[in-house]
Amino acid sequence: MIERQHASQMDRDDPLASWRDEFVIPDPELIYLDGNSLGRTPKRAVTALHRVIDEWSGDLISSWWEHDWLNLALTVGDELAPLLGAGPGEVAVHESTTVGIFQQVNAALDLAGDRSGPKVVAIADGDFPTDRYVVEGIARLRDVTVRHGLDDLGGVDVVLRSLVDYRTAELVDLAGETQRACAAGAITVWDLSHAAGVLELDLPGTGVDLAVGCTYKFLNGGPGAPAFVYVSKRIQDRITQPIWGWFAQDDQFAMERPFEPRPGVGRMLNGTPPVLGLTAAREGIRLSAEAGIGLIAEKARSLTGFGLDLADQFGFETVTPSDPTRRGGHVAIRRDDARRLHAELTARKVIIDRRDPDILRFGMSPLTTRYVDVFDAFSTLTDILTGSAS
Amino acid sequence: MIERQHASQMDRDDPLASWRDEFVIPDPELIYLDGNSLGRTPKRAVTALHRVIDEWSGDLISSWWEHDWLNLALTVGDELAPLLGAGPGEVAVHESTTVGIFQQVNAALDLAGDRSGPKVVAIADGDFPTDRYVVEGIARLRDVTVRHGLDDLGGVDVVLRSLVDYRTAELVDLAGETQRACAAGAITVWDLSHAAGVLELDLPGTGVDLAVGCTYKFLNGGPGAPAFVYVSKRIQDRITQPIWGWFAQDDQFAMERPFEPRPGVGRMLNGTPPVLGLTAAREGIRLSAEAGIGLIAEKARSLTGFGLDLADQFGFETVTPSDPTRRGGHVAIRRDDARRLHAELTARKVIIDRRDPDILRFGMSPLTTRYVDVFDAFSTLTDILTGSAS
Repeated sequence: MIERQHASQMDRDDPLASWRDEFVIPDPELIYLDGNSLGRTPKRAVTALHRVIDEWSGDLISSWWEHDWLNLALTVGDELAPLLGAGPGEVAVHESTTVGIFQQVNAALDLAGDRSGPKVVAIADGDFPTDRYVVEGIARLRDVTVRHGLDDLGGVDVVLRSLVDYRTAELVDLAGETQRACAAGAITVWDLSHAAGVLELDLPGTGVDLAVGCTYKFLNGGPGAPAFVYVSKRIQDRITQPIWGWFAQDDQFAMERPFEPRPGVGRMLNGTPPVLGLTAAREGIRLSAEAGIGLIAEKARSLTGFGLDLADQFGFETVTPSDPTRRGGHVAIRRDDARRLHAELTARKVIIDRRDPDILRFGMSPLTTRYVDVFDAFSTLTDILTGSAS
Repeated sequence: MIERQHASQMDRDDPLASWRDEFVIPDPELIYLDGNSLGRTPKRAVTALHRVIDEWSGDLISSWWEHDWLNLALTVGDELAPLLGAGPGEVAVHESTTVGIFQQVNAALDLAGDRSGPKVVAIADGDFPTDRYVVEGIARLRDVTVRHGLDDLGGVDVVLRSLVDYRTAELVDLAGETQRACAAGAITVWDLSHAAGVLELDLPGTGVDLAVGCTYKFLNGGPGAPAFVYVSKRIQDRITQPIWGWFAQDDQFAMERPFEPRPGVGRMLNGTPPVLGLTAAREGIRLSAEAGIGLIAEKARSLTGFGLDLADQFGFETVTPSDPTRRGGHVAIRRDDARRLHAELTARKVIIDRRDPDILRFGMSPLTTRYVDVFDAFSTLTDILTGSAS
């Protein structure tokens, strides 16, 4: 029988416990298990935003050079790279995840060798809506057909796939599935939105060519923070992407020339980078990099394991894999009354996430989530079901 | 002979003079004539950013509903609409100008009727690099050829065109040129980057179907602020765009369905909107809306006219039209020694913009630029050329 004191003891033993102090937490009584939708606010992001406002008002246009705003999409990418196992010059941070997926799938299609007939993009029907929508949109735009499902990759040119399932937290075998697609002649674009900042990844080592993801979940980058794109060094001077803007031009201010993509991942850029969003995102990314992705991933496994044990103890049906190597940073349970329970939890200041029709997600952000939060969330849920007062 | 006291008198008579107090101006001695590259910082934007940081940290994920972040791209668009003569539901603010141009040109191509052979997009060789690059990129992506030049629009399906030339400030006849393209069977996508917030526009009244532009210039939206897209009510339920994200889905959180674009301009949206950037941009947009675009446009004509008179008085070669109805919000002069003069002006705290090889741009932002700023800039330039001390 797990008691609350066990959770308290785990918090005392947690080597990452003090990182919670790096975040703005106005209401210490609020239990927040939705950092996999929107991460908390790093105190340093607040400071950095104040600083960038001063740069904007004081140094005005000169800030693009003096404060290196011109390269912000790439320098923030370089700070994110180690969290993906990637190196400098392999990651850029810009635009939205939707735009990033669009760019990466098109880039992968261009890389795929010529064959007669339309090229084929494969995606699972249960993948995140945006991923499916982007593929549908591309199939309408160019000569592409969509294969629904990933079991048979014969004849497939490009696979678009989430590493972590947004509902169940099921984690795919990154190396194995990249290799399986490769053996079938397909390039995989990995969507790391629910993986970045919570799993220890080695994109180059696992043979990943192209990836994309968001920074506002486990990376605590801020609401609507810009997305990242990863392009392996191996292929980056061969790739093209379809949205050609002046930040992707080799010599940006030589304005009279035709488009010539800059070397490296910079060719993925589009327009003027979102300086405010990038400034906040950088601080969230830095916190994870400083804390160390190894420790973060370890705590994620531990927190989710603790959540699964509690779910089991309180009699909930989980849909999250029990194998710690096969899951991301959240725990999901299935309840027919998910909508009602979500509302009642919110009323009792326990914030989790709901996905229709019947999934409740408990997100564990290793830098801010305590074991007592996980305990209190499950025990509040049980109180609601047994009719106990809060 | 124009003296400095004339400029001072014009400032005293200026009905918009007090709006300058709405902006953060840390160094009152700095003469800033580059608001057409990056507008100044509205004080209200600073306050609004502080507020949105509090929303993020305090209300966390609930902010998407409680503070209506979910609709921010559209509500900010509705606040921008009147500055374009547009109505509610015709403007969205999101992503970068590059992405917006890509979306709009593709949307226009889809609208263009079928004809045999590739469709044709026309663009002038002297248009802003991003506009040209985006068109080149689209021509590589789908069955499209590029017509260089706008004199003959026979056989053209889509025209992409800047309303105001980024070098000379020359302003095209919006209604006339939209109509000329229409008569040739072409749809025009207007790039309003150097027009929005400085010219009084009536997009519906001038028959414009599609437009795009940035908010960080005359609209003072902040560095890398999101772009806007305008889609006329007339056509918006017929248009498609190629980057399909979950914010463009008709019922966003009904996640198991195929993509079905929402009605209205919302179908132009892509991914999760950049909340920090939109929050700042909204304040800049509001200031222009409150001050009134009629007065702003009138002051822009007056400031640029004053600048042209000074250029003439001091003997500079201008490339900006003398007809006030034919120019945007800046004055450009041509100098072979532009690079040196730009550096020397900067050293004397006069910030203007340079475009290689020989253009110096004096940007006039009606809410922040004073007539004495324009006078002092030209007189400092003359001092530099005559070897006077600053």
